[in-house]
Amino acid sequence: SSSSTPIRATLFPGDGIGPEISESVKQIFQAAEVPIEWEEHYVGTEIDPRTQSFLTWESLESVRRNRVGLKGPMATPIGKGHRSLNLTLRKELSLYANVRPCYSLPGYKTRYDNVNLITIRENTEGEYSGLEHQVVRGVVESLKIITRHASLRVAEYAFHYAKVHGRERVSAIHKANIMQKTDGLFLKCCREVAEKYPEIKYEEVVIDNCCMMLVKNPALFDVLVMPNLYGDIISDLCAGLIGGLGLTPSCNIGEGGIALAEAVHGSAPDIAGKNLANPTALLLSGVTMLRHLDFHDKADRIQNAILNTIAEGKYRTADLGGSSKTTEFTAAIIDHL
Amino acid sequence: SSSSTPIRATLFPGDGIGPEISESVKQIFQAAEVPIEWEEHYVGTEIDPRTQSFLTWESLESVRRNRVGLKGPMATPIGKGHRSLNLTLRKELSLYANVRPCYSLPGYKTRYDNVNLITIRENTEGEYSGLEHQVVRGVVESLKIITRHASLRVAEYAFHYAKVHGRERVSAIHKANIMQKTDGLFLKCCREVAEKYPEIKYEEVVIDNCCMMLVKNPALFDVLVMPNLYGDIISDLCAGLIGGLGLTPSCNIGEGGIALAEAVHGSAPDIAGKNLANPTALLLSGVTMLRHLDFHDKADRIQNAILNTIAEGKYRTADLGGSSKTTEFTAAIIDHL
Ligand SMILES: CC(C)[C@H](C(=O)O)[C@@H](O)C(=O)O
Ligand SMILES: CC(C)[C@H](C(=O)O)[C@@H](O)C(=O)O
Repeated sequence: SSSSTPIRATLFPGDGIGPEISESVKQIFQAAEVPIEWEEHYVGTEIDPRTQSFLTWESLESVRRNRVGLKGPMATPIGKGHRSLNLTLRKELSLYANVRPCYSLPGYKTRYDNVNLITIRENTEGEYSGLEHQVVRGVVESLKIITRHASLRVAEYAFHYAKVHGRERVSAIHKANIMQKTDGLFLKCCREVAEKYPEIKYEEVVIDNCCMMLVKNPALFDVLVMPNLYGDIISDLCAGLIGGLGLTPSCNIGEGGIALAEAVHGSAPDIAGKNLANPTALLLSGVTMLRHLDFHDKADRIQNAILNTIAEGKYRTADLGGSSKTTEFTAAIIDHL
Repeated sequence: SSSSTPIRATLFPGDGIGPEISESVKQIFQAAEVPIEWEEHYVGTEIDPRTQSFLTWESLESVRRNRVGLKGPMATPIGKGHRSLNLTLRKELSLYANVRPCYSLPGYKTRYDNVNLITIRENTEGEYSGLEHQVVRGVVESLKIITRHASLRVAEYAFHYAKVHGRERVSAIHKANIMQKTDGLFLKCCREVAEKYPEIKYEEVVIDNCCMMLVKNPALFDVLVMPNLYGDIISDLCAGLIGGLGLTPSCNIGEGGIALAEAVHGSAPDIAGKNLANPTALLLSGVTMLRHLDFHDKADRIQNAILNTIAEGKYRTADLGGSSKTTEFTAAIIDHL
């Protein structure tokens, strides 16, 4: 449903190939008459003391105000005294769930067909606490933190997601046979939430076994929810099943209804500025943003145009074995709208 | 080289299907005239206070004395006051490296062909420290411990393994971009050891990216070495590529030259005693034990007989899509010796 007053959304083009693939998104969204007005923010060239990173305070304010945004790849500059860009965004905006739909692209052959699963990753704690220290020389430790608050929050999101998207099952991925307290608490929270959703099946799968099952038969899974590091690992594994990070959308859900969609691939500095980049992951991430805004008609229209262009196979970028420029692929998608 | 005085080796048949598949190993080894005398030890029915588990002190003494053994699946009985059987073995025998050769079985089709890699897992520390506690209600933490001692030890083993087996490359798998101190120390140790092996290529791969690359193209890897949990995950993922844990051998290397080969699949209580189990993983684990003893002729002979029987396809157990009994499959392997 195209509303009349446009929605303001933050756009972080990012660096490397980011600006080119963002341009592709802007053109396709405009051609599809998506009522979105982009507020563009680039990564700063100096450390902003208010964010302790190269992200500007204004850019974070923009996402907080708009509550919706799209983000290209950002390479954290090397050096001391500042925080990683991605981790700062997750922390400052309380982006507590990273959602990655992963489905086989029709016509793009990999070893797997009919993959259709969703990984939902806790995005704020666990192994990413940043708490590490040397105990004595040659002995270091790092803390994995699991809280009831964050576990319930991501479990709620997973079951809610399963329900509104007509999914049948949620699998909680864990290693509670070894980490009985931390992963045990995570599972306990998932079980509590599962009880409130009797129509959704619930199961628990140990992470090592999960990875083996995923490579043997990904159709065994539907929605997967898990602590931070397992989500990091499994979402990339799943992306590999269907062709890689260049093809998989992702969306970060934050407190207060924030949705920051994000292409999780790298900034590919080697091909930056050469009109060679594949905008698919950023485009499909933009589509998840549209769905979050309930613009389902626009989302369907754009998603179909992307998938049909790839399926047809005439215009594909080099990473997919084709020889199209970013701009040619973009034009082909617009033709398919 | 078949020596005249037989070597004594400990055999833990384990439970569930363990005794049946152990019987298969014993018969095949005997038919191949392997000069091994088995010392069999079963899991006890009571907790042994000296091991704090159902493992008997005598069985541990047997491995310590023989320095070589083979282990079937062991299901840890449920209940309090005792330790997991597998973890007790690793701890008590300082089984510091778990080595899993993972290669495509000729004639047994999966989505992948020509997989040929070795995962080497640190087996004593990391996320398996058992150190966990509740900080306040709703907040729990677990400690990941990385030591210079254990990291150097497993890295040494990995490079040594690569060298004696004519492997070209060792990849250290990590998440040091997040766990800079713990995984950072692990990498530092790998780098130190790598310098002593200039003929072996060395690279470092982030675990999420590693999993994606493994499912896209496992031929990118050769020998992989990594901290405990990553090894748990990646070794199962790799097993999935070639058909599962029923087909992959494993061997645990301990301080003082101990080698305890082990089938890492479960004890499959549902089919136990029915003559349906597939002994392949235990057999191939036995083969790794023979190689550890430098019985390469016997190892080759038995390994070829197993692989040829599977490749021929006439006798396969149910898990591989066949209808052979364990004893029929065993007899077929003996025929192929
Ligand atoms: C770059 C890295 C810190 C990040 C992570 O581990 O979360 C990345 O792998 C991701 O998944 O977004
Ligand atoms: C059963 C479990 C404790 C064990 C582990 O996590 O090490 C298993 O997965 C393995 O790989 O041997």
